[in-house]
Amino acid sequence: MSTIIGETLKNIPWEDRPEGRGEIVWRYSGNPIIKRDQIPGANSIFNSAVVPKDGAFVGIFRSDNTAMEQHLFLGKSDDAINWDLDEKPIILYGKDDKPIGEACGYDPRVCFIEDRYYVTWCNQFHGPTIGVAYSYDFKKFYQLENAFLPFNRNGVMFPKKIGGKFIMLSRPSDNGHTPFGDMFLSQSPDMEHWGCHRYVMNATGWAWTKIGAGPIPILTTEGWLLIFHGVCTTCNGMIYSMGAAILELEEPWKVKYRCKPYIFHPTALYECVGDVPNVTFPCATLTDAETGRIAIYYGAADTVVGLAFTQVDELIAFIKDNAL
Amino acid sequence: MSTIIGETLKNIPWEDRPEGRGEIVWRYSGNPIIKRDQIPGANSIFNSAVVPKDGAFVGIFRSDNTAMEQHLFLGKSDDAINWDLDEKPIILYGKDDKPIGEACGYDPRVCFIEDRYYVTWCNQFHGPTIGVAYSYDFKKFYQLENAFLPFNRNGVMFPKKIGGKFIMLSRPSDNGHTPFGDMFLSQSPDMEHWGCHRYVMNATGWAWTKIGAGPIPILTTEGWLLIFHGVCTTCNGMIYSMGAAILELEEPWKVKYRCKPYIFHPTALYECVGDVPNVTFPCATLTDAETGRIAIYYGAADTVVGLAFTQVDELIAFIKDNAL
Amino acid sequence: MSTIIGETLKNIPWEDRPEGRGEIVWRYSGNPIIKRDQIPGANSIFNSAVVPKDGAFVGIFRSDNTAMEQHLFLGKSDDAINWDLDEKPIILYGKDDKPIGEACGYDPRVCFIEDRYYVTWCNQFHGPTIGVAYSYDFKKFYQLENAFLPFNRNGVMFPKKIGGKFIMLSRPSDNGHTPFGDMFLSQSPDMEHWGCHRYVMNATGWAWTKIGAGPIPILTTEGWLLIFHGVCTTCNGMIYSMGAAILELEEPWKVKYRCKPYIFHPTALYECVGDVPNVTFPCATLTDAETGRIAIYYGAADTVVGLAFTQVDELIAFIKDNAL
Amino acid sequence: MSTIIGETLKNIPWEDRPEGRGEIVWRYSGNPIIKRDQIPGANSIFNSAVVPKDGAFVGIFRSDNTAMEQHLFLGKSDDAINWDLDEKPIILYGKDDKPIGEACGYDPRVCFIEDRYYVTWCNQFHGPTIGVAYSYDFKKFYQLENAFLPFNRNGVMFPKKIGGKFIMLSRPSDNGHTPFGDMFLSQSPDMEHWGCHRYVMNATGWAWTKIGAGPIPILTTEGWLLIFHGVCTTCNGMIYSMGAAILELEEPWKVKYRCKPYIFHPTALYECVGDVPNVTFPCATLTDAETGRIAIYYGAADTVVGLAFTQVDELIAFIKDNAL
Amino acid sequence: MSTIIGETLKNIPWEDRPEGRGEIVWRYSGNPIIKRDQIPGANSIFNSAVVPKDGAFVGIFRSDNTAMEQHLFLGKSDDAINWDLDEKPIILYGKDDKPIGEACGYDPRVCFIEDRYYVTWCNQFHGPTIGVAYSYDFKKFYQLENAFLPFNRNGVMFPKKIGGKFIMLSRPSDNGHTPFGDMFLSQSPDMEHWGCHRYVMNATGWAWTKIGAGPIPILTTEGWLLIFHGVCTTCNGMIYSMGAAILELEEPWKVKYRCKPYIFHPTALYECVGDVPNVTFPCATLTDAETGRIAIYYGAADTVVGLAFTQVDELIAFIKDNAL
Amino acid sequence: MSTIIGETLKNIPWEDRPEGRGEIVWRYSGNPIIKRDQIPGANSIFNSAVVPKDGAFVGIFRSDNTAMEQHLFLGKSDDAINWDLDEKPIILYGKDDKPIGEACGYDPRVCFIEDRYYVTWCNQFHGPTIGVAYSYDFKKFYQLENAFLPFNRNGVMFPKKIGGKFIMLSRPSDNGHTPFGDMFLSQSPDMEHWGCHRYVMNATGWAWTKIGAGPIPILTTEGWLLIFHGVCTTCNGMIYSMGAAILELEEPWKVKYRCKPYIFHPTALYECVGDVPNVTFPCATLTDAETGRIAIYYGAADTVVGLAFTQVDELIAFIKDNAL
Repeated sequence: MSTIIGETLKNIPWEDRPEGRGEIVWRYSGNPIIKRDQIPGANSIFNSAVVPKDGAFVGIFRSDNTAMEQHLFLGKSDDAINWDLDEKPIILYGKDDKPIGEACGYDPRVCFIEDRYYVTWCNQFHGPTIGVAYSYDFKKFYQLENAFLPFNRNGVMFPKKIGGKFIMLSRPSDNGHTPFGDMFLSQSPDMEHWGCHRYVMNATGWAWTKIGAGPIPILTTEGWLLIFHGVCTTCNGMIYSMGAAILELEEPWKVKYRCKPYIFHPTALYECVGDVPNVTFPCATLTDAETGRIAIYYGAADTVVGLAFTQVDELIAFIKDNAL
Repeated sequence: MSTIIGETLKNIPWEDRPEGRGEIVWRYSGNPIIKRDQIPGANSIFNSAVVPKDGAFVGIFRSDNTAMEQHLFLGKSDDAINWDLDEKPIILYGKDDKPIGEACGYDPRVCFIEDRYYVTWCNQFHGPTIGVAYSYDFKKFYQLENAFLPFNRNGVMFPKKIGGKFIMLSRPSDNGHTPFGDMFLSQSPDMEHWGCHRYVMNATGWAWTKIGAGPIPILTTEGWLLIFHGVCTTCNGMIYSMGAAILELEEPWKVKYRCKPYIFHPTALYECVGDVPNVTFPCATLTDAETGRIAIYYGAADTVVGLAFTQVDELIAFIKDNAL
Repeated sequence: MSTIIGETLKNIPWEDRPEGRGEIVWRYSGNPIIKRDQIPGANSIFNSAVVPKDGAFVGIFRSDNTAMEQHLFLGKSDDAINWDLDEKPIILYGKDDKPIGEACGYDPRVCFIEDRYYVTWCNQFHGPTIGVAYSYDFKKFYQLENAFLPFNRNGVMFPKKIGGKFIMLSRPSDNGHTPFGDMFLSQSPDMEHWGCHRYVMNATGWAWTKIGAGPIPILTTEGWLLIFHGVCTTCNGMIYSMGAAILELEEPWKVKYRCKPYIFHPTALYECVGDVPNVTFPCATLTDAETGRIAIYYGAADTVVGLAFTQVDELIAFIKDNAL
Repeated sequence: MSTIIGETLKNIPWEDRPEGRGEIVWRYSGNPIIKRDQIPGANSIFNSAVVPKDGAFVGIFRSDNTAMEQHLFLGKSDDAINWDLDEKPIILYGKDDKPIGEACGYDPRVCFIEDRYYVTWCNQFHGPTIGVAYSYDFKKFYQLENAFLPFNRNGVMFPKKIGGKFIMLSRPSDNGHTPFGDMFLSQSPDMEHWGCHRYVMNATGWAWTKIGAGPIPILTTEGWLLIFHGVCTTCNGMIYSMGAAILELEEPWKVKYRCKPYIFHPTALYECVGDVPNVTFPCATLTDAETGRIAIYYGAADTVVGLAFTQVDELIAFIKDNAL
Repeated sequence: MSTIIGETLKNIPWEDRPEGRGEIVWRYSGNPIIKRDQIPGANSIFNSAVVPKDGAFVGIFRSDNTAMEQHLFLGKSDDAINWDLDEKPIILYGKDDKPIGEACGYDPRVCFIEDRYYVTWCNQFHGPTIGVAYSYDFKKFYQLENAFLPFNRNGVMFPKKIGGKFIMLSRPSDNGHTPFGDMFLSQSPDMEHWGCHRYVMNATGWAWTKIGAGPIPILTTEGWLLIFHGVCTTCNGMIYSMGAAILELEEPWKVKYRCKPYIFHPTALYECVGDVPNVTFPCATLTDAETGRIAIYYGAADTVVGLAFTQVDELIAFIKDNAL
Repeated sequence: MSTIIGETLKNIPWEDRPEGRGEIVWRYSGNPIIKRDQIPGANSIFNSAVVPKDGAFVGIFRSDNTAMEQHLFLGKSDDAINWDLDEKPIILYGKDDKPIGEACGYDPRVCFIEDRYYVTWCNQFHGPTIGVAYSYDFKKFYQLENAFLPFNRNGVMFPKKIGGKFIMLSRPSDNGHTPFGDMFLSQSPDMEHWGCHRYVMNATGWAWTKIGAGPIPILTTEGWLLIFHGVCTTCNGMIYSMGAAILELEEPWKVKYRCKPYIFHPTALYECVGDVPNVTFPCATLTDAETGRIAIYYGAADTVVGLAFTQVDELIAFIKDNAL
């Protein structure tokens, strides 16, 4: 039986770990897969989320234009490496089926639950908070109420209801550059009213400044596999690395294992040099239940999109062997 | 017909405005009505909430002890001026009817809705947030879920449902001394899941640092009469004064009138000297629909409890005449 | 010959130094001479400037109303102790003789030069800067261009041209609570264009946080006698005391003597308790050349106006005996 | 047998606790015993240390002059309440018996060990550090090397060697207003070279900002009785209260009991209003072994000197009954 | 008729836009044209200004030496790409024709007006302010009074008088790393007295931290073409990009069009890596009225000098098409 | 006679200065000599110290692992360029010859004095302070008491006693990212008790933020040759360069010459890009008395180890010719 409880994805992008190297997560040799100016008028494209759909792939991409406005764009790909991005931002519609406007904001995640794809992102509402929308087909997106009061970022859904409720991770903090922040979990009967908040885990160790959920948690036989970003601060700014943990299946605010070392760190030139140096920020994974392959999509230096790989059994073993 | 839509309260405490004075809100001559050490082991008693009950009065009082721990205490009074305070904090019970522990936190408000008294206060949940409990009889208090993710303070209920939902005002901000903060409104079908957040009003004018709802809004023929605290910051710290506004009855996130000047300001020695100088912080009112009398209970200098008076028609006229 | 080079002012307010006391500057026994609410709707009246006129006295008073808006008000007095204040702010007129609006801002000074009275104050122009107006008769006030770019405060004129130019002291700093600031001098041919800036003196010693000119400098046989405010910062905020110095007559940016100790310090209750505790802020003097008497008008605790006295020969001797 | 292991002091100043009051430490009715201007040219006199000597009393007093310069002054008293203070600062001599200069600095403590009186205080050496001097007779003071590198304050000696070494408590922190700081202990064979540093206790509870040793620890049958200052920070500044603990006799870096509540808090007007509001800062005690009486000398509001009383058995019982 | 109202400059340096690229401003292929150590003892050479003169080119260059002292140096070039730099700083002379000393300071601009070349730069005068000098021949430089009180940077002249007055743009701010700042305009009858200050434009959009004028505004048939630097702040520091706007000819404080996107952004390695990463800071242009070619000189990473190109009609169309 | 008073070291690593270059200190062409991941599980290896021993070389290396824990590791080399590093941290032993645990901390220095090698490093003891250990053979390391109270970094020993005492340089500062700090010197009779503190030199000029001693001072005929790091702060963070000075032989707290320019600055890509950009941090030198060659080991970008060279007579001449 496979460790990942999910679909087979035969066309998941993949490269084997470079020989003689011991990293638990390794870079795609063709990185960055998306350049900063692939969309006309773009300053940067990064921190984006992809999902498989109908044998191919779709994604929601953050792109800041040269006016430094942040919008969400639709992208399509056959191989999940080469992407066609729309030149216009996504349009959001209201419950009345009338257009509200372009999708503004940043750091989207996409999660399929039951019958539709939910998009969560950092939306502005008198400060940053979690915007919520859904689509059945990636053609039309319906916006719901914002999930929380400000100030909040990194809202990440679980791919199925638990205890009859929708579940979202998030990171409440302040309205500036957010020098602190732990991870919380909230629950909802209807995707509009949120409560029963739970504390999940804190900024500590190498990630002592703040942490935030990354891709949609991966359902495994061991529990929910969570990849997140963690941040430490040096005298010359923040470093965003990736961490990993395993959460309990039925009470996912309980941490079974949390990996003490980071699993990925900015060392490539395109991760260390750019608009915000030293950032690797994961927002999505693709997974193949059959082989246990995991492809991680991450923003690099707040400028481009990178791709990295790991294997689920190796990663879970690494987390358990190096548990905090 | 009376302006206040509510009960008659014949034994409301009262003093007429001192002759020759023009303040819209005036102090009780016997202030402070509660001294800092009225409870054994107390450092201070302030920022507290009272309600009429069965012909007399009950209240929830914030008291910090000499270890500077913050608890909520029950108090009773026949005249709403002289109070008997319990020497032990209130005990909170869970939904399972088992005791959870002493009520920790600060700045309580009390609101009767339909069939019971709801208490909201600033609770610690990985940072300040809004704690919620209820009681039918002030003998047993049942705690509900915290209303919001941190960081939030000054959660204040409306005394009836609007549009079929419970309504709460609050002030999201950060986890320190809160140098900023506007007022928001949130809605709930069940007192545990909150959403449909609305922006109510901002820190501006004399209250340019932050604002927060004070007593339970008073239902009047003109709309909801809201007394709040507003804060400005000088080079020597913050000054907490009182402001007033009138909100729309059915859409109370819409401000009909907001009074441009403050209505009360720390000038008495017991308001200007104490643990936190220059603070007047209103948490409750008593109202008499027949006479329109309003008695305001406020914390002074984060040290003692003061009492002040106003009259509803005069106050509403003042707000409208001086609307922002 | 008298030390003060100026007019006789027989009706200068005066009290002798209390017996057995050694202060170089002493308080008026009837302080505060102006209460915080002497103007209807006032929160506070402080930091104000007075001049003799036609055998009586006029003044420009800073009053913050209960909306914490800052305006300038006209006041009149026969004895310079009991003041009648207008209930409406001063109206400013433009060069075209049309009204511009009410005089907004704070901390006015008044200086008679040649044929008219100039008022300088802290005006808002994308940040604080020095507003300038003049009047021949205290009935009509004409506003000129602001003197400087932001961010500046405490603009204080000399009472006569030097080297054919108007001369102003000021204190450039930032746009917040101004945690630093030294004193500069600028020159103008026309009261609208300013240049030839000179550095006068720095924040140091007891006034290590910042300094700012106070009353109009007093012309004496020893040089320009300058009373200023100086500020130190404790863990509980800023303390505003008064200092004194003597500047060279023809090159007033050169300091002949600067008094090492302060000459006045907040110790009275109305100076230590109020909206901004521990502030004594001098804005004007009256002087009598015949007796050498000096009456100092100062704001206390940013709340009320106080009056203090000194004698010119004693003060100059004190400065020289205690020169830095 | 008496609890205090030490001398009888029949003329210790004393007042019984006011009737009907429950404070563990109570104020002298004649407070403040030293006014801010008792020395000519003084701005304030506070944070000072006294010892019995030859049937009378001597003390080292901190006084800031009106130039805000900080010096140490000698004082003498027959009753330990009315003090004659020198008008000139103490002169320090070097090992070569030549004068070095006036004793600059602040917050002195005095401790008799073996054959002489040691004075420790906050000295400037490229930042605050602990100055050390000694005297046999309070006529001539010899300065030794500073004990530590900067940045350090509140160096307090034990009154006898332990393990053959001199012992000093101190509070390392930064060079500003010191927003943090715990208590450490250091050891020396010769009063000039210090090492074998030990951690004693942390800022926590009501004293969450910082703590610092106060008077010389009192030797009792229960251990070393330590009174210290602790600080919390409100939005309007710091509050300095007094705490108490009992340290192990032979290993005094080990805390046997630490009192959870404070034992004294600024509530009197002369403690809440002054140059630094809300400060009570203990620097010395007198003790009478026979009666167990303890007289505490403390600075109030960084402006004046206050006196308070407690009784050793009551205080120790209070600490043990309320141990953290 | 040409858009640029000015001289023909046949030998303006030029490269066509790389094929297939859409940038409105593009880099010179030989960048950086000046290395960090081209002057012996230099740490860096950047933020410099050039002008055509007598068929060739001269420039004023900022170079910080290895003691990190900032001086201005003269440079000469036949092609405006390869520069000979003096090894000694420029000497400034006073009005009395006597040498004052070496030109200290940074970020020079050069502007020919009527009969001479004016140099403005950031000069130290108790804080940063705008230094002013002129030269007829680049052999002798005469220093005038500083234009403003501190704190000011980026003083940039217009190349002709308007309304009979000299016109200068500048950016008042504070004395640190300047985390805020808008653009203002000041007027002078004589280059020494400045007044009639006008507000031009604010930090907003992509340049939300601060903005400052760059090269001398270019006179065009559409108005004054202004290239400026704008700064946003990430969690890892500031990014300096270039923006553009068109100001009204006769009232140049009025913005006709302001380009919403930036026109140039640090993306080359020599712009992203150096003493201050992610900085492109324009200080001068050369223009050819006949072809509309514009060559922009900019500092890169506070380390080297880069060259970039644009064409006036394209740039103006871009600004108008993308106006804020 | 040779300038360096010390041993001949024939196998010192060496490369001549690149032709046509004028730097006083130049890079090794094979830099970085140690990569960030040379130890399995390492995130980075930098700021490390080496010494010659028995014809070969040993070193103490700082390596942060992928959990960002900081440990000290032993390394060995035949040529001082290619290093074998242990995979496990050094174990420290107590005076009782029992193991204490792994050597935690950072920025080690190694100094041979009389009969053994002393290691000093930044150790955690309720804040950063100076840890001390010694070894006779690099097989067993005995830990002594920490030298100072917190907060201190960069403890660097002199290689022989002076005046009969051990001598250590250090940099007291605060417990954060240390935005300030000067260099001090302390003395000890026994390596455990430290006193007689002396001030050495301040942060100034290009190193205006802070300074700290680097390698063990080199004994020369001219005095102690000291290489140190100095830091300036830009709007995008701190830059760590190297400076040099010569101290008096017998009173090494007296600075004979201090070089005004820096002698080395981060300009190579591996110095400008990494976990902390723009850092060159020297911790050790090797010296050959016969040729005067000096090899400097320095951390680059807090990520890797670099090697650079200089020659003693040239360096001393450079310091003297460019003395501050």
